[in-house]
Amino acid sequence: MSLEDRVRELAEDVEPADGSAIRAARERQRALAKPPGSLGRLEDLGTRLAGMAGECPPSVSAPAVVVCAGDHGVLARGVSPWPREVTAAMVGNFCAGGAAVNALARTAGARISVLDVGVASDLERHPMLRTAKVRPGTSDLSRGSAMEREEAARAMLAGAGVAEELISSGGVDLLVTGDMGIGNTTPAACLIAAFTGRAADEVTGHGTGIDDATLKLKVRVIEEALELHDPDPGDSLGTLADLGGLEHAALAGVILTGAVYGVPVILDGVVSGSAALVAHALAPASVEYMIAGHLSTEPGSRIALENLDLAPLLDLEMRLGEGTGGLLAVPLVQAAARVLGEMATLEEIGLG
Amino acid sequence: MSLEDRVRELAEDVEPADGSAIRAARERQRALAKPPGSLGRLEDLGTRLAGMAGECPPSVSAPAVVVCAGDHGVLARGVSPWPREVTAAMVGNFCAGGAAVNALARTAGARISVLDVGVASDLERHPMLRTAKVRPGTSDLSRGSAMEREEAARAMLAGAGVAEELISSGGVDLLVTGDMGIGNTTPAACLIAAFTGRAADEVTGHGTGIDDATLKLKVRVIEEALELHDPDPGDSLGTLADLGGLEHAALAGVILTGAVYGVPVILDGVVSGSAALVAHALAPASVEYMIAGHLSTEPGSRIALENLDLAPLLDLEMRLGEGTGGLLAVPLVQAAARVLGEMATLEEIGLG
Repeated sequence: MSLEDRVRELAEDVEPADGSAIRAARERQRALAKPPGSLGRLEDLGTRLAGMAGECPPSVSAPAVVVCAGDHGVLARGVSPWPREVTAAMVGNFCAGGAAVNALARTAGARISVLDVGVASDLERHPMLRTAKVRPGTSDLSRGSAMEREEAARAMLAGAGVAEELISSGGVDLLVTGDMGIGNTTPAACLIAAFTGRAADEVTGHGTGIDDATLKLKVRVIEEALELHDPDPGDSLGTLADLGGLEHAALAGVILTGAVYGVPVILDGVVSGSAALVAHALAPASVEYMIAGHLSTEPGSRIALENLDLAPLLDLEMRLGEGTGGLLAVPLVQAAARVLGEMATLEEIGLG
Repeated sequence: MSLEDRVRELAEDVEPADGSAIRAARERQRALAKPPGSLGRLEDLGTRLAGMAGECPPSVSAPAVVVCAGDHGVLARGVSPWPREVTAAMVGNFCAGGAAVNALARTAGARISVLDVGVASDLERHPMLRTAKVRPGTSDLSRGSAMEREEAARAMLAGAGVAEELISSGGVDLLVTGDMGIGNTTPAACLIAAFTGRAADEVTGHGTGIDDATLKLKVRVIEEALELHDPDPGDSLGTLADLGGLEHAALAGVILTGAVYGVPVILDGVVSGSAALVAHALAPASVEYMIAGHLSTEPGSRIALENLDLAPLLDLEMRLGEGTGGLLAVPLVQAAARVLGEMATLEEIGLG
């Protein structure tokens, strides 16, 4: 079977959330020892979790963040002030435990898997790091395709493989998406523009922190790329290959795999949002397993989430990536599940 | 010393947050291995925590929620559809572990202390429950004073005592405020109107769920109470005694005690917000130790927080009380502290 066929098969395995578990959760929310609706969006979230798990109450006790890493040829256009080498240095910092993702994963009680699908340099082996380097970074997407279709499929399947292993062998029942890749908000913006039909200047932001002149350049580069490739959102894999990044592809694979296994996937910021659009294009029902962890300050984040009809749980003006915004939402998701699993009903306490 | 003098002494012990710890935290935020400012409000929160603790990095590893409970004479006016007995039944449910506060405290790893300062009926003893019943519920605040000044002071000192014990003997370094009391959004609205100068219909909402006719009645009752007492916000204790509730007073004591000990206090919803206004009126610097856990759907919540210049961390359309919205913010506060304590600097990873 070709890699592309295997991606198609993965997408076809995604089934809609379980309607009867959703109905059972709604009924239980109304019966619990609280005024109906008084837990607001936490109740809606718990009900969605039941639908994803196919049972009420749902369980989300073993979270893991998958941080997909890659480099980007478009960096040569000057879209970021950080040099390419920072990608590898930050992966090293993840493995050493000193990054933001480490501090926030500890708070959330989440394990970390880092997946190298396309870092430009060789990385030291580490138990936290999975290596499935499809190629050492993409080509410049403003001058040609970022990668071949087959490479996009391979990266996607690498992400799927890590997620599957975490779920099947690791007992993980809650996934968080994370990304590392200097320059990766440019392909993210390209994908968001391609899949939502929005203009380059609407979906492009300051990334992790560029000045206004660089932002202008970044918008122009993205406009050039969109003009060059004239993307057909109906051809998701082609669009991903032309305009995306290897970590974006891998994250789409993580998301689809969560959906296949009925495991909720908390999306981090704009890179995850762009990968979610790819996953959604391949398997529309996958959105039923997605939870928007937070709203990034990067404007493409809001546009991607609105397009997917997902409301973010947090809005703390963050723009770091690495899965940090997604990890902050883990306790909220766990709280929503615990409400369904652990609260008494009004009847049980004599108020029914 | 009179009870009122003891309250005054407590308030006088509140000192402003530590400026040098704040400066050290700001400097460290800029040095850490992330683009400056990329963790958004989490960075500001971490910096505030350092100021509260008087050291950088700050530690917030042992959270506790204090749920103060009381009944309300104004319930006789029909401001809530729930009967008074629900207060005692819910306290029983807290002790049995089946309430929303229990599920969310487990998620946050927080211990629970329930303080009975004014439940109308006698409650069964339980290790989780502290009894310091000042009186079995307040009088109808729309017909006279809710309580005597001395009773308000006594309830406040009871809250202060529980908080002090948790901090001094229990090692608690993060407090969350919670409340239980059928009808208690009415005194909360009265206090918020009194301390902010806003009109009754601006600060009054549907509470845990009343219909529009009851809301109209509730606004009228609050207007009557404000007219009857013509509160002087300069006399905080008098205003609290006239228009408040016993749990509101106790929560003000919890908040002041956190501030005295340099322990951050996460505020839950509208009842906590009204208690925070009392604490702030008694000791303006106490606001430096307050963290707004969430924005309740009750309109007085937003008005109280705006008046205190506090931005809520979460907005999940909740209105349950019990400390639920505050507990959901615990991991966010812990994450903010961990970022300062556990991340490497750019220099340490060779990017400085």
